[in-house]
Amino acid sequence: MPDNSTFAITHLVGTSDVGLDDAIKNGIRRASESLRNLDWFEVTDIRGAIGPMSEVRQFQVTLKLGFRYDS
Amino acid sequence: MPDNSTFAITHLVGTSDVGLDDAIKNGIRRASESLRNLDWFEVTDIRGAIGPMSEVRQFQVTLKLGFRYDS
Amino acid sequence: MPDNSTFAITHLVGTSDVGLDDAIKNGIRRASESLRNLDWFEVTDIRGAIGPMSEVRQFQVTLKLGFRYDS
Amino acid sequence: MPDNSTFAITHLVGTSDVGLDDAIKNGIRRASESLRNLDWFEVTDIRGAIGPMSEVRQFQVTLKLGFRYDS
Amino acid sequence: MPDNSTFAITHLVGTSDVGLDDAIKNGIRRASESLRNLDWFEVTDIRGAIGPMSEVRQFQVTLKLGFRYDS
Amino acid sequence: MPDNSTFAITHLVGTSDVGLDDAIKNGIRRASESLRNLDWFEVTDIRGAIGPMSEVRQFQVTLKLGFRYDS
Amino acid sequence: MPDNSTFAITHLVGTSDVGLDDAIKNGIRRASESLRNLDWFEVTDIRGAIGPMSEVRQFQVTLKLGFRYDS
Amino acid sequence: MPDNSTFAITHLVGTSDVGLDDAIKNGIRRASESLRNLDWFEVTDIRGAIGPMSEVRQFQVTLKLGFRYDS
Amino acid sequence: MPDNSTFAITHLVGTSDVGLDDAIKNGIRRASESLRNLDWFEVTDIRGAIGPMSEVRQFQVTLKLGFRYDS
Amino acid sequence: MPDNSTFAITHLVGTSDVGLDDAIKNGIRRASESLRNLDWFEVTDIRGAIGPMSEVRQFQVTLKLGFRYDS
Amino acid sequence: MPDNSTFAITHLVGTSDVGLDDAIKNGIRRASESLRNLDWFEVTDIRGAIGPMSEVRQFQVTLKLGFRYDS
Amino acid sequence: MPDNSTFAITHLVGTSDVGLDDAIKNGIRRASESLRNLDWFEVTDIRGAIGPMSEVRQFQVTLKLGFRYDS
Repeated sequence: MPDNSTFAITHLVGTSDVGLDDAIKNGIRRASESLRNLDWFEVTDIRGAIGPMSEVRQFQVTLKLGFRYDS
Repeated sequence: MPDNSTFAITHLVGTSDVGLDDAIKNGIRRASESLRNLDWFEVTDIRGAIGPMSEVRQFQVTLKLGFRYDS
Repeated sequence: MPDNSTFAITHLVGTSDVGLDDAIKNGIRRASESLRNLDWFEVTDIRGAIGPMSEVRQFQVTLKLGFRYDS
Repeated sequence: MPDNSTFAITHLVGTSDVGLDDAIKNGIRRASESLRNLDWFEVTDIRGAIGPMSEVRQFQVTLKLGFRYDS
Repeated sequence: MPDNSTFAITHLVGTSDVGLDDAIKNGIRRASESLRNLDWFEVTDIRGAIGPMSEVRQFQVTLKLGFRYDS
Repeated sequence: MPDNSTFAITHLVGTSDVGLDDAIKNGIRRASESLRNLDWFEVTDIRGAIGPMSEVRQFQVTLKLGFRYDS
Repeated sequence: MPDNSTFAITHLVGTSDVGLDDAIKNGIRRASESLRNLDWFEVTDIRGAIGPMSEVRQFQVTLKLGFRYDS
Repeated sequence: MPDNSTFAITHLVGTSDVGLDDAIKNGIRRASESLRNLDWFEVTDIRGAIGPMSEVRQFQVTLKLGFRYDS
Repeated sequence: MPDNSTFAITHLVGTSDVGLDDAIKNGIRRASESLRNLDWFEVTDIRGAIGPMSEVRQFQVTLKLGFRYDS
Repeated sequence: MPDNSTFAITHLVGTSDVGLDDAIKNGIRRASESLRNLDWFEVTDIRGAIGPMSEVRQFQVTLKLGFRYDS
Repeated sequence: MPDNSTFAITHLVGTSDVGLDDAIKNGIRRASESLRNLDWFEVTDIRGAIGPMSEVRQFQVTLKLGFRYDS
Repeated sequence: MPDNSTFAITHLVGTSDVGLDDAIKNGIRRASESLRNLDWFEVTDIRGAIGPMSEVRQFQVTLKLGFRYDS
């Protein structure tokens, strides 16, 4: 981070029916459509939904995303 | 949640002079004026203000609200 | 607790469309149908679902329930 | 809070056989008999006792109470 | 969750020598042999065992699993 | 743990009027009457009850117990 | 706890050069000299001091003590 | 807080090459360029970057900022 | 700490319009007017109030203070 | 663990541009170059860096590694 | 601690087949063979292994140990 | 961080009789005498010692320090 700059943090849940890595990437890709300058992420929760055949229907990864304020 | 969709999370403090249930409802109602597709909430803090007669002047409930990104 | 007795702990989510107190009571009532000697509870999470009119559709209270092992 | 004033914090458990809001109010009312200038509260634990009919016999809410030091 | 239904939570450790996604799936599959109506999961701990060649011998994922009480 | 096996976790409160070590042992002994293959424990809370002479009437140790699913 | 009664909580550090059980008892005994109606305790931290021979010079157990408000 | 009003919470990282107080002030000043009615803050993380001479190159303070919804 | 002595813990919020160090010192100075033998402190929360010009109107530092029981 | 043996714990951040499993393995492999007898790991944080195309440039997994003291 | 001195912290797991006090002492004794100036400890986790007769085969206490940097 | 590099983490307590910023700098400076490539820090605890005149005798800041493994 450049000195004295300020970073905003946004929170979201990325999901995937494939796995954790993919859920992280999906969440960041979706956020990048409306937010510029994404810089780092942190995973704060890992959850998921189970389907009728007891398969993992959806991995859900809660993310904090840091990005530079536009100047 | 539909597969691979992304959910944003917003944080706010709902308040009430009646009680906890009402503070939750007030916070969600106010958020719904500017956010569509609200889906779930989580309570992360319960606080309040005490008035001069030692009555509870205000219940304050910190909420995380999840909502679908518009597509 | 009687000295040297052992208490089991079970975890569940009680729900209600009315409020937090009711969600706690519903969860305990349901657990009491299969567990005897329920003794105490602790609330570990408060969450909920929001309906299409931005109303609280369901309060969800995660509970730890302590009960004496039958002897 | 006025600038540079100091606030003391006391901890207690308010109880009720009615519900959470009532347990908070009972705890604050009782504390106000010996403490002046109560200003805010925070709920740090929610627990309770279950009676022989599996009813909630007592809601127990652990509170932090902030109050101004007398000057 | 249907309104006013109750969900039980069970805790287990799913393991795998492949990776985290596989450990989650293995744990859920094994639980589904004795529990019906599995609905959601949450990861609360990620640990593992290291073998004599400093390879990851076993990924261990602690899970909370929610399921509907049979009615 | 053998590779890809699954471990269940149960929670209980072991008690003793002697001390912490004894409370842990009492809880595990009692659990072993109904659960086979107990493998490890973790202490998550230490509490107790105080008697009329301000003596420790009961040490209460909350335990997580891991055990292999029967196969 | 009797219904609707209020419990105060005090915090202290009990110490011992013998061990954890003794540190808990010492802390409660000392508190009982100034506080009546002690009812329960909870251990929130376990620390200690190490002496010049690398022996444990002092076990330090941080306690929350609950007691009934005099009425 | 006025009764029944709602407060939004935003998260950001304020930085400074001077120290913690300055990092807090920089973060709030920057946020105030786009948010009105800032009311309170909470520090949730303190981190920083170290430069090639082992000097603190940047203090980084993660903040929660509360502000009133415009009405 | 002398062996087997007992330490009480009190909680308070020290404030300052200057910065964190000053808020800590103000809280301890105020507590020392009524408590003797203050020995150590721990910071458990850092919060503050923001004024109408988006300046930090007040730094608020929650402290645990340990002190020897008078003997 | 053999009875009465002692285990040291070291902390590190393993990284990967592929995913979480790979970041865990990379961190353990690198640690094994200087530490013998690695026995278990625990993941305590999951973070990462985002690149200019909003792709995950680096997965960062903070690990606790346990290993037997050489005797 | 002398003013402006620096203390290092190391983490380890002390074990015992006797009990918690003994596990703490064993861990510190082992660490003192390679580290001088040990000053304080903190217990961060209490775990253990259960043997085939459901006896506690090993108490495992995770410790943080503080020691002065040699000068 | 360069891709796939590994970072070690060390823990220490920096101290100062001046304030928090100075305690952070003192701890990092001392660590840099024996560790190269220090990259980032995180504050995990803020404590201190109080002197006989109720002045802050020592600020104590627990730090996690990340540094690149030499290659």
